[in-house]
Amino acid sequence: MEQLHVATSTHDYTISIDENIRFNIQDYLTKKYTTIFIITDDQVAPLYLDDILYGLQDQRVVHTVIPSGEATKSIEYYYQLQTVALENRLDRQSLIIALGGGVIGDLAGFVAATFMRGIDYIQVPTTILSHDSSVGGKVAINHEQGKNLIGNFYPPVAVIYDVHTIQTLPENEIRSGYAELVKEAFISNEDFLQQLLAQPLSAISNEQLKKHLYEGVKVKAGIVEKDEKEANIRKYLNFGHTLAHAIEATLGYGRITHGEAVAIGMLFALHVSEQKYGRDLYYNELLTWLTDNHYPLSLFNIDMDTVIQLMKLDKKATNQEVQMVLLQQIGKPTVETIDETTLATYLQTFKKELTAI
Amino acid sequence: MEQLHVATSTHDYTISIDENIRFNIQDYLTKKYTTIFIITDDQVAPLYLDDILYGLQDQRVVHTVIPSGEATKSIEYYYQLQTVALENRLDRQSLIIALGGGVIGDLAGFVAATFMRGIDYIQVPTTILSHDSSVGGKVAINHEQGKNLIGNFYPPVAVIYDVHTIQTLPENEIRSGYAELVKEAFISNEDFLQQLLAQPLSAISNEQLKKHLYEGVKVKAGIVEKDEKEANIRKYLNFGHTLAHAIEATLGYGRITHGEAVAIGMLFALHVSEQKYGRDLYYNELLTWLTDNHYPLSLFNIDMDTVIQLMKLDKKATNQEVQMVLLQQIGKPTVETIDETTLATYLQTFKKELTAI
Repeated sequence: MEQLHVATSTHDYTISIDENIRFNIQDYLTKKYTTIFIITDDQVAPLYLDDILYGLQDQRVVHTVIPSGEATKSIEYYYQLQTVALENRLDRQSLIIALGGGVIGDLAGFVAATFMRGIDYIQVPTTILSHDSSVGGKVAINHEQGKNLIGNFYPPVAVIYDVHTIQTLPENEIRSGYAELVKEAFISNEDFLQQLLAQPLSAISNEQLKKHLYEGVKVKAGIVEKDEKEANIRKYLNFGHTLAHAIEATLGYGRITHGEAVAIGMLFALHVSEQKYGRDLYYNELLTWLTDNHYPLSLFNIDMDTVIQLMKLDKKATNQEVQMVLLQQIGKPTVETIDETTLATYLQTFKKELTAI
Repeated sequence: MEQLHVATSTHDYTISIDENIRFNIQDYLTKKYTTIFIITDDQVAPLYLDDILYGLQDQRVVHTVIPSGEATKSIEYYYQLQTVALENRLDRQSLIIALGGGVIGDLAGFVAATFMRGIDYIQVPTTILSHDSSVGGKVAINHEQGKNLIGNFYPPVAVIYDVHTIQTLPENEIRSGYAELVKEAFISNEDFLQQLLAQPLSAISNEQLKKHLYEGVKVKAGIVEKDEKEANIRKYLNFGHTLAHAIEATLGYGRITHGEAVAIGMLFALHVSEQKYGRDLYYNELLTWLTDNHYPLSLFNIDMDTVIQLMKLDKKATNQEVQMVLLQQIGKPTVETIDETTLATYLQTFKKELTAI
């Protein structure tokens, strides 16, 4: 088993990564709870809910299954889950388990953060991508005007990561999750980066997956420990994300996975970084790996003016100036303000390179 | 000016109490904000909104006025305020000012706690009662199934208390606020208690009010500093509240103010405490003061079985056993579990005493 400890301003918690630990949630509880409330979705429930329940037979456990997909990160589902919690007589000594991907983790985490002013919750991620969102305590729902606009910083009391659950993921979700792992490598660790870029996604063993998740989570946890509330270095985790958010918004959520968009965003950030700092930063190696692993780079054939407008509206933008995370070298990220003209030039040359493939 | 400093797990803040400081909010801001968003209600706005705006002329200020009353502490108004904040382009460097009583403070505080994962807010209380809710960082909205069931612990960055605003309060609101001051005296300080019980409510000067608020806030702040998240001694602040919540629920909210119900609850807690500990605990003195000041004690003529059932459902109850804050002596509160039969007996004798007046 791989384990990592994370210190937060309120408490410490442990991230455990192994095969088949979903049957033994009981072993990871550090106190007695009056009720355990499992929140999951209709894709995950048929596969893993019984396994979780199996390991909690001595407890008072209730559960609810909501539809899968981003649409449930809404004020309506948020309130409905509060109602279900009250109807099931949860109190301040109860626990919520978020069983699922990033949507379930964000939503159930925000319910836990605000139920009777906050109760304990555990993340049980079932996708590769949610290695990222399950660590760090960002919980949120969407507002009609944008993603994750309503939320909290509220760390879980444990993250229990069963790599077995990842075997059922579709290919685009594997690409999505691995893009965030590659991101973590780029901003921290050249060895880890080389390992990942040498790895075809079609042939990953559970042993390798454990190692990769462990390394990725270590990067994420190390950064959020130092900057829990995104005052400074936590911004580095947005490497590739400024353009990614604009791509997702332009294409409409659902046509490309988050990580696939981040992959294109990283490639662009490397394009800018290599030109700005005059240094080889694995642009070509990443491009080859993305192409070999069928990342949908051709989807970047979109209108650049729209993209630029969206980048200026990003949550991290200040006075509508675009902030990008760039790399001075592998493991040395920096946040730079890019004016609109320069941005447009970089985007045009990047698009030309991509569509010429 | 009276000032108090409160330390919390995330930051320190200052409570300032004086006359006419509502014109100078600017002086209490410790940093530059991109936008200041004032949330107030339609009773307070005509009286004091312009005064607040006057002192913020150099800033980008927006405001919204919602109906007064408990009904706005709802999920619908909560979401609507998030929308107004987004439409007015608030960002992570913006400030919310809660201008009003406890409802506005709780609601606007919860919006601040969860807007883009939390922004700064200032409490500008305009009632005596809200000296209590504006300090300590409890923010919340109501759920159909109960009050304050959805919320956070999220301290303000400042509390600015202009005693002038209290001159416009109706008599029942003055009684309501002073009952909480009397509560704070009972659980902490016999001198303060004697001062209050010697004071007719019809003849309070602003100077006296400042002193009383200062003493009350000092008790509250001292307790929440030691127990921010209600793990132990913060429970003492519920002196009088277990019965009060049951009275409010039985009569229907609106027929009696919160503090007036707390007054009856305290009297009952003293009735139980005097019998249990065989000691004089100002029961008679409090009864006289409440009668002289027209507290609506006759409203306690309600069904005792209903009251007992409601007390068993209290948020602080465990396994449906009633927990009451009692006094061993003035300034020495304790939390005791009371079984149902004993509770019924105490309630009957208390009701007999009250209705015999």
